[in-house]
Amino acid sequence: MEALHKKIREEGIVLSDQVLKVDAFLNHQIDPVLMQQIGDEFATLFANSGITKIVTIEASGIAPAVMTGLKLGIPVIFARKHQSLTLTENLFSASVYSFTKQTESTIAISTRHLTSSDRVLIIDDFLANGKASQALISIIKQAGATVAGLGIVIEKSFQGGRAELDTQGYRVESLARVKSLNGGVVTFVD
Amino acid sequence: MEALHKKIREEGIVLSDQVLKVDAFLNHQIDPVLMQQIGDEFATLFANSGITKIVTIEASGIAPAVMTGLKLGIPVIFARKHQSLTLTENLFSASVYSFTKQTESTIAISTRHLTSSDRVLIIDDFLANGKASQALISIIKQAGATVAGLGIVIEKSFQGGRAELDTQGYRVESLARVKSLNGGVVTFVD
Repeated sequence: MEALHKKIREEGIVLSDQVLKVDAFLNHQIDPVLMQQIGDEFATLFANSGITKIVTIEASGIAPAVMTGLKLGIPVIFARKHQSLTLTENLFSASVYSFTKQTESTIAISTRHLTSSDRVLIIDDFLANGKASQALISIIKQAGATVAGLGIVIEKSFQGGRAELDTQGYRVESLARVKSLNGGVVTFVD
Repeated sequence: MEALHKKIREEGIVLSDQVLKVDAFLNHQIDPVLMQQIGDEFATLFANSGITKIVTIEASGIAPAVMTGLKLGIPVIFARKHQSLTLTENLFSASVYSFTKQTESTIAISTRHLTSSDRVLIIDDFLANGKASQALISIIKQAGATVAGLGIVIEKSFQGGRAELDTQGYRVESLARVKSLNGGVVTFVD
């Protein structure tokens, strides 16, 4: 997606060979117009997949997920990382390790919002080692629902997450595929 | 806002005289169409206020904030509750106590994204005791920026947050004002 590549080139900051900082438009400050373009793109890619629900994780997945849900006309669920007094009922949950935050956490979705008849599109801001995606897949399977595919804003193709999802047979659509961050330069997969 | 009142009446769950659960369309599952209507309403209310930035807190404020930012054509910043490896620079920060989660936390915004020339609209999903709003106001003042107003999706008018903001002279626009949850019934301010 050219608008996204341009934004990454102009406003992304390479912190190391492993870490790309996109706090200027995706992870802290958000560009709503770009989010709408991203949502439209995911909606087009998954238009004929019979999607009934979108699932993401708080917090940075929410903006692209909601824009995709708006275009497809379906609800969005964001998995919660932190227990709330108002999230009291039965939960589907899974453990996820974040390399960025260096913490293990439990993510959860209320059993009220996912059923076995749902066809779910997972949306997330980043795909790196795939720990978050695998946790969401686990939750969707616990509900007996179907994973229709994954829509990723930025994939770090040099880490293992994409390859594992490919091996498992999931459809993955990444709008930017980063081949390397070596030498402080963002190189995209052709 | 009638569409929001209707949604609260039909899908809101009164957990106690203090707690309204809206996990079906705002805090866990999100209704993107309603979020767009909410964003349009905030954009209309604050159309001539010279807003340059929207500020919210992760996670439930993000959807209504991004829809408002889309309509107004301005960026959205969400204050982060949790330190990240990619949020490494100087931060404006403030402490906030959550009665819902019964935890004290620090929220932060990078100094890169707010400047003294910004006129900021605060958007949040709930206004109850006002602790989150006061923390965001503190952060905006640390940047030397101006608080142009607050757009709240659901205000619990029987708690003290609204009255304090009124006393401080801030413009507060709440799309649903809940007068009482007594007896398991949602009563709105006329």
